[in-house]
Amino acid sequence: MARIRLLVLDVLKPHQPSIIELAKELSDLPHIDGVDITVYEIDSKVENVKITIKGTTINYDEIMKVIEDKGASIHSIDKVASGKEIVEEAQTHQDSPH
Amino acid sequence: MARIRLLVLDVLKPHQPSIIELAKELSDLPHIDGVDITVYEIDSKVENVKITIKGTTINYDEIMKVIEDKGASIHSIDKVASGKEIVEEAQTHQDSPH
Amino acid sequence: MARIRLLVLDVLKPHQPSIIELAKELSDLPHIDGVDITVYEIDSKVENVKITIKGTTINYDEIMKVIEDKGASIHSIDKVASGKEIVEEAQTHQDSPH
Amino acid sequence: MARIRLLVLDVLKPHQPSIIELAKELSDLPHIDGVDITVYEIDSKVENVKITIKGTTINYDEIMKVIEDKGASIHSIDKVASGKEIVEEAQTHQDSPH
Amino acid sequence: MARIRLLVLDVLKPHQPSIIELAKELSDLPHIDGVDITVYEIDSKVENVKITIKGTTINYDEIMKVIEDKGASIHSIDKVASGKEIVEEAQTHQDSPH
Amino acid sequence: MARIRLLVLDVLKPHQPSIIELAKELSDLPHIDGVDITVYEIDSKVENVKITIKGTTINYDEIMKVIEDKGASIHSIDKVASGKEIVEEAQTHQDSPH
Amino acid sequence: MARIRLLVLDVLKPHQPSIIELAKELSDLPHIDGVDITVYEIDSKVENVKITIKGTTINYDEIMKVIEDKGASIHSIDKVASGKEIVEEAQTHQDSPH
Repeated sequence: MARIRLLVLDVLKPHQPSIIELAKELSDLPHIDGVDITVYEIDSKVENVKITIKGTTINYDEIMKVIEDKGASIHSIDKVASGKEIVEEAQTHQDSPH
Repeated sequence: MARIRLLVLDVLKPHQPSIIELAKELSDLPHIDGVDITVYEIDSKVENVKITIKGTTINYDEIMKVIEDKGASIHSIDKVASGKEIVEEAQTHQDSPH
Repeated sequence: MARIRLLVLDVLKPHQPSIIELAKELSDLPHIDGVDITVYEIDSKVENVKITIKGTTINYDEIMKVIEDKGASIHSIDKVASGKEIVEEAQTHQDSPH
Repeated sequence: MARIRLLVLDVLKPHQPSIIELAKELSDLPHIDGVDITVYEIDSKVENVKITIKGTTINYDEIMKVIEDKGASIHSIDKVASGKEIVEEAQTHQDSPH
Repeated sequence: MARIRLLVLDVLKPHQPSIIELAKELSDLPHIDGVDITVYEIDSKVENVKITIKGTTINYDEIMKVIEDKGASIHSIDKVASGKEIVEEAQTHQDSPH
Repeated sequence: MARIRLLVLDVLKPHQPSIIELAKELSDLPHIDGVDITVYEIDSKVENVKITIKGTTINYDEIMKVIEDKGASIHSIDKVASGKEIVEEAQTHQDSPH
Repeated sequence: MARIRLLVLDVLKPHQPSIIELAKELSDLPHIDGVDITVYEIDSKVENVKITIKGTTINYDEIMKVIEDKGASIHSIDKVASGKEIVEEAQTHQDSPH
C-alpha cells in the first residue's frame, strides 16, 4: 500500500517534557527522515505546537503513541502527503477566502 | 488523448476514515505519483479538505470512486493541468480582484 | 512569423463538459506543451475559468474553436508571450495602483 | 554604443488588432528574444496593456513604429535595462512609500 | 538517539556582553555549524533576541549554560528540528489565523 | 582601494532625453555591467526615476557627470555595495517599522 | 575562537562623507568580502543607514573605528552570524506579533 511521506499535526502538550525531547523521540522512530516542532501558542500550563514529520514510510499509530505517552494529545491532522513523491499543495483561486 | 497530470479537488468528508487513509488509497491508484491532502475547515461532523493529485495519467473516475466509497463528496474541481508538461498558471493583472 | 508561446484566456463556460474534458482537448492540439485550467468563480449555471496554454506554436483559432465547440466563450485574452523565449512580465512601480 | 536589453511600455490600444497580432509583430523585429503583453484594463473601446520586450539590441524607433501602425499609442516608458547584462532593480527602503 | 539539528530560542539578555560575544561563544561549542542572533526589541536595560542555532548534534544543556553564564535567560524554545535531515515546517490552512 | 559594485540613485529628470538615452550613456561608461532605470513618478514637466547600476568598479563622479549633463539631478544615493562580492542587505526585525 | 561572518549595524551619520566613501573604507578592512549600505531615513543634517557586512573574520573594533572616524555612530547591532557557515534566521510563529 502507498506510503505516507509527510504528516502535519496540531498538538496540545504540557510544557514538560520539552519539544526537544519530543522531537528526539519522534525522529528515532523507524523510517523517519526528520521532524520539525514549532510552538505557536503558550500559556501557563500547556503549549500548542505544530509538528511536521517527513519520512519514507510514516506509521501514524507509532507517532500517536509517542505523543500520547508524553501526556500530549493530537488536536488535528492538518496535512498528509503520500505516494512515490511528496506533492506540494497547488495554489488555487479558492485559497484566499479561507 | 492528452493526459491529466495534476488535479485539485475540494472535498467534503466525514472525520472517518481519516485523511491518512484517503491519501493512501488515492496514491495506490495506477499512474499516481503523489497526493497531498490539506484540511481547511473542521466542524463537529465533517471536514473540508483540498486534495492535490499529481500523476502521469490521472483517471478522474477512479479518483471519484475512491472518494465516494469513503462517504465523501467532491464539491468542486478547482484546477486541472494536462499535456506533456505541467504548466503553471500564469499571473495576470486580472488576478487581484478575485 | 514569430510564434505564440504562452496564452492566458478568461473563459465563461457551462459546468458540462468539465474542465478535465476541456483541458484534455486543448492539450491534444498540435504544438501544445501543456494546459492549466483554474476555476475562479462558480455559480449555479456557469463557471469562470482562467486557461493558461504553453506551447511551441500556439494557434489561437484552433484554441478558440475547441472552446466554443464546448459551449464556452472567451471573455478576454489577458496575456500573450511570443518569440524565441518566453519573457516574463517585468515588475514596475506602475504595477501597484492597478 | 551600449545596447538596450529590456524595455517596458505602457500602451493604450484599440481592441483590434488583438494583443496576439501585436506580440507576433514585435517579436518579429530583429534582435528581439521575446515579448510579453499583459492587459491590465479594458473598457468598451480601448485596452491598456503593459508590454515587456527582451532582446540583444532593442531599437525603440522600430518598436514605436509597429505599435503606432496598429493604431496604438505609447503612454509611457516605465523601465529600461541596458548593458552587457540585464541588471535587476535593487530593492531599497525608499520603495515602500511609493 | 536522534540528533537535534536546529534550535530557535527567545532570549532576554543584558546589553553586555554584546550579541557578538554571545554568538562567538555559542558557535565555539562542539558540533555547532553556525549561529544567528537577531535583536527584535531593545529597552534601556535589556534586549530581546532570537537565536537560531544549526549543528550536527546540538546539546541543549551546553547552549543553556553559555546563555545563563552571560546573565541572560531563555524565555522560550520556539522551534526545534531533529533527525537525519532538517525538515522545514509545512504550510497549512491553519497557519493564517494565528 | 575597494571597488564600488552596485549603486542605486534617486534622480529627478526632465522628460527629454528619455530614460533610454540615459541608460545607454550610463552603460557606456567603463567597468559598467548593466543599468536599470525604472520610472516611479511622472508629472507634466519632470519624472522621478530610480537608477540601479552594477559594475566591477563604478566611478561615481563619471555617473554624476552623465546624469547632470542630461539636465537631471541626483536627489539621493539610496544604496551602495562594495567589495569582492555584492552582499545583499540582510533582513532584520528593525525593518518593518520603517 | 569562532569567527563572526555577518554583521548588521544601524548607524547614524552626517551626510558627508557619503555612503560611497564609508562602504569603500569598510570593505578595505582585512577579511571583509563585501559591504552593503542602505539609507532608510534622511533629514537635513543626518541620515540613518543600515550596514550589512559579510566576511570570513569580521573584527568589530576595526569596523567601529572606521565608522566613528567618519563622525558617525553605531546606534545598535541588529544581527550577527558566526561559525563555520552563515546560518539564516529561522521563521517562527513568534515573528508576526513583533
